[in-house]
Parts: sequence; structure tokens; C-alpha cells
Amino acid sequence: MILTVTLNAAVDVTYQVDELVPHGSHRVLHTTERAGGKGVNVSRVLAALGHDTVVTGLVGGAAGEQFRAELRAAGLADQLLPIAGETRRTVTVASRADGDATVFNQAGPDVSRQEWDAFTALFTQLARDAEVVVLAGSLPPGLLSDSYAELTHLARAAGASTLLDTSGPALRDALSAAPDLVKPNAAELLEVTGCRDIPGAAGQLRAMGARAIVASQGPEGLSAYTVREIWQARPPELVWGNPTGAGDACVAALAVGMAEGSSWPDRLRDAVALSAAAVLAPIAGDFDADAYHRFQPDVILEQFHASGCH
Amino acid sequence: MILTVTLNAAVDVTYQVDELVPHGSHRVLHTTERAGGKGVNVSRVLAALGHDTVVTGLVGGAAGEQFRAELRAAGLADQLLPIAGETRRTVTVASRADGDATVFNQAGPDVSRQEWDAFTALFTQLARDAEVVVLAGSLPPGLLSDSYAELTHLARAAGASTLLDTSGPALRDALSAAPDLVKPNAAELLEVTGCRDIPGAAGQLRAMGARAIVASQGPEGLSAYTVREIWQARPPELVWGNPTGAGDACVAALAVGMAEGSSWPDRLRDAVALSAAAVLAPIAGDFDADAYHRFQPDVILEQFHASGCH
Repeated sequence: MILTVTLNAAVDVTYQVDELVPHGSHRVLHTTERAGGKGVNVSRVLAALGHDTVVTGLVGGAAGEQFRAELRAAGLADQLLPIAGETRRTVTVASRADGDATVFNQAGPDVSRQEWDAFTALFTQLARDAEVVVLAGSLPPGLLSDSYAELTHLARAAGASTLLDTSGPALRDALSAAPDLVKPNAAELLEVTGCRDIPGAAGQLRAMGARAIVASQGPEGLSAYTVREIWQARPPELVWGNPTGAGDACVAALAVGMAEGSSWPDRLRDAVALSAAAVLAPIAGDFDADAYHRFQPDVILEQFHASGCH
Repeated sequence: MILTVTLNAAVDVTYQVDELVPHGSHRVLHTTERAGGKGVNVSRVLAALGHDTVVTGLVGGAAGEQFRAELRAAGLADQLLPIAGETRRTVTVASRADGDATVFNQAGPDVSRQEWDAFTALFTQLARDAEVVVLAGSLPPGLLSDSYAELTHLARAAGASTLLDTSGPALRDALSAAPDLVKPNAAELLEVTGCRDIPGAAGQLRAMGARAIVASQGPEGLSAYTVREIWQARPPELVWGNPTGAGDACVAALAVGMAEGSSWPDRLRDAVALSAAAVLAPIAGDFDADAYHRFQPDVILEQFHASGCH
């Protein structure tokens, strides 16, 4: 089983309007609401691929109830811990005029010390049944920036591998716990290390504790820095569509690779093909299954020598 | 008791951001959520003035639960009918940089024929205990545009006076039921009649069935067109602040005047003073009580002859 952790759950709301006019009053033409967060999107992709997955994390209030109901409707098993604070919403205003989106992200609820202790107890139990634990997304304001380090230690003690996808202090302060795989995107990787190039930043992240790094680089694919190998993987063709959720699809594929112990070339082929297939689907957590199978054998792989890394 | 009707209830959400950047991603600095809608705001003002008021209307889903919880917390008596559709949210993005607001209004839930029948039965019962019924705000998409006409007839049969504050087809198609008082703002009045001046439009509205009209004209105050009299009422000073909710305060004062059978000059003095005091309060449904009492004796009243109306 692959356990995904969503500490800062969100109900993702999309408002379609004719055109966004600052200071204007807008009639919302169409509203969609969906349980969101990176961890949930990873579980959606895993479930669609036929893998056993459980969603855990923290939810509260009316938005939390809505979040759980939506997961149930999507057929996802949930072991979320109820908390007193209200689950946040993110509002995306999609403009018909130019197809562009404007996003408003709430910070998320406070989490008490007691709630965090209850969560780590639940997590420890769930991690015992998991081959891989995916720690993904931002932390709510109430949690310490080393919360992912604590979960990484607990997962290891429970016998599960860890895959971390976050940014900023939450990423930096998790590295000392030596997560098995870290998947930042290129911008997050450069930002957290202060380096100017991907190989240098990956070296730095490894020095800080990460056992392996896969950096996503949008349409250019992935760079993987493992203990002994460096790989570059590119999609066979440029795809156009909705890049939201491509990172989550990438994480889902890498988590499957870790759970099944497959080779790095196989993992990367899967991750690149699934990311590109997610770009072709309009909603985060979905992917174009035909495109995935079509792209997978044709992903372009290149191996570099470790000495190329500064 | 003054009964307020909110058929298209809304949870009003305000997001404070640094600056609204179209196509940007925004961190929400502060979120407030509040049960909204014109009827609810009128009841808030009535309750603050010490008047007996009951909120009725339609609510549904998680947002509907939140709406009711917020009314309870505000000490407002609610006799809302639960429906299957989800209560809407309105999102206001307030920018710290320029203090300006950008608004996104969802349309509201569908309402079935059965739900509407259940509501009219509940409404008839509640109207029997009311001196005045306030019908305020937009209609949800599922309701016919003559829904306020139906409620006006039912209120009259139950022995209650009616005060209508809405716009567009919901206003136009209510007039044949001869509501006792209609309170459009100037723009709504001109829009619904197609007239170019307020006196002409008020005459037209009376010809369509309205027994009396009070047109609100922002900082310029109110114009009242009663069966025999025409009045203009202006605040003693120009006030700066948040005009949202000034119309609801005006309606609350007019409803009290109707319930107590006070004279038109007294009603208008109250309505102008309370509207101006609402402009000084940051949130719709609130008002500055000191300013209200200070403004009230100094409201400027002028009477015109009915022949001045085209």
C-alpha cells in the first residue's frame, strides 16, 4: 500500500468568469469544487493505475466534511484525522476571455500540539502497512517546519520508504531525516539551496541528507540524482495542456517504482510518461491513459557520470 | 415581529491579499466568513436596534450549515428551510495596496417545486406573526421571477405588510402583487423601468403596482414617493466609508417605521441616519450607533408636490 499524507488539505474551488476585471463585480458562470492537495492528487493517480492507496492527513470544519465526502465519492480510502481548525479552500478564477487563471490560496488551519501527537500515532500505525509513504504539499501554519522530518523518521522505523514533495523551509528542515527520495521542481530546488544550476543544487540537497533527488523541469522532463547514477529523462514529444497535477502524477509513478523496486530507467520512463499524460487531462489528479501508454516506451533516457555534478 | 426573507442565502467570504494581480498566485493574508444576503443583514440591524426579527429563506449543504451556525452565533432566530442544493458563497478579494475590492458572486442553488411549496407553507405560518415582511435580495436560479409576487400575496393574506428590495426581473414581476413599499437604488429603479429620471421611474413603478417607493441615491440620501407625498431626505453631512450594507440599514429603518406606523418624515429621518451610520461601519449589517443618534435629528427633509412627478 502507498500512503499519501496531506497535512494542509484544501477544497479546490474553481470559478469560471467571463473576464477577470480588478475591482469589478463578477457573475460566476460555473463552479467546481474538489478535494485537493498534492497528496490527494497522488492517491487519485495511484487509484486510477490500480494501486492500493490510503489518504491520511488533517481535516476540520465544514470544508473538511466536504473534503471527506468528495474522497468517498471518488472511491478513495481515507484515514484522515479530524482537527478543530477549518480546512482551507483555494479559489482559482478561470477567465473565459484569455483562458488564464488567477489563484487565491488560504494558509490553512492551526494545529494544536495534542492534534499533532494524535496524528503521529495514527501515522505510525498506517505506515506499518505501507511500502512507501508520500509526504507532499505545504504545512499548515500551526506545524513546525521539521514536521516532515519527524514523519520521515517514524516511517523508517515502521519499515516504509519515504518520498517527499514540498518546498521552502518544510523541504529544508526535512532533509536531516534522510528521506529516500525528494522530488522538488527546478525552481523549488534552486530556491531551497540558493544554487544557480540543477546539478549543483542536487549535490547540495544530497549533502543536506536527501538520499536521491528527482528534479522536475516542466516540458523538459526529469533529472534524477541517485546514489550512483545521474539520469536525464525527456518526453518523446512536447505536450500542451494543463501543467497543474503533472508533478503529482510524477510522484505517483516514482512511488510505484519505489514500492515495486523497479530500476531507475523504468521509474523515470513511467514518471515522464505519466506527467506528460497528466498535462493532457484538464484536472489535477487525472491523466490521459492512452497517452501514458503511448509515451512510455518512447521516453528519451540519457545517463551521465557522477563527476559531472559539482 | 419583522420577518426577513433570504431566498438566495450566501456565505460571504472576504480574502485580504497584498495586491490583486490578474493571472497571479496570491497568498491570502486573512479570511473572514459571514452569513450574508440582504435579508440577513436587515435582521442584523433590526436585532442591534432591539427589534424582534426572524430570518427565513432557503439553505443547503455544508455552506448552509455554516450559514445557520453563524446566525446562531450572532444571536439571530432562524426559521430557514433546508433544501438539497448547496448554499452559494460570494468571494470578495480585498486588496491592501489600494483598499479596493473585487467580487465574485455564485448564482445559487436550484430549488425544486416541492421545496418551494414547502417554503410557501412555512412562510405563510411565519407571516401570521409578523407585522412586516422584508423580501430582499436576488432569487436563486431555480425560482420563477414572480416568486416575490407570490410571497407578497401570501403575506397580505396573513395580515403582514411587505417591503421589497430587489432588482431586475425579480422586482418587475413582483409589482403586480402591489407590495406596500419598494426600495430600489437609483440604478435599479432606472434599469427596471427604462426611464431616465427618478421621478418618472417612480411614477412608472407605481403604475406597475408598487404602493410606495423609496429610492436610495447613495450619499445624496433618499427620495420617497408615497400615495400622496413626495419627500427628499439627505444626510446632514457627507460620510466616507463602506457603502455595502447601507441599503440594508435603510430597509431595516423603513421596516421599523412600517411596523410602528410612524410618519413618513420620521421613517425617512431614521432611514437616512441609519444608512449613513452603516457607511461608517466596516461590515455589512453593522452600523455606528453613536453616529446614528447624532445624524438622526439633523437629517434634511424637503417635501415636493405630487404634480412634480411625471
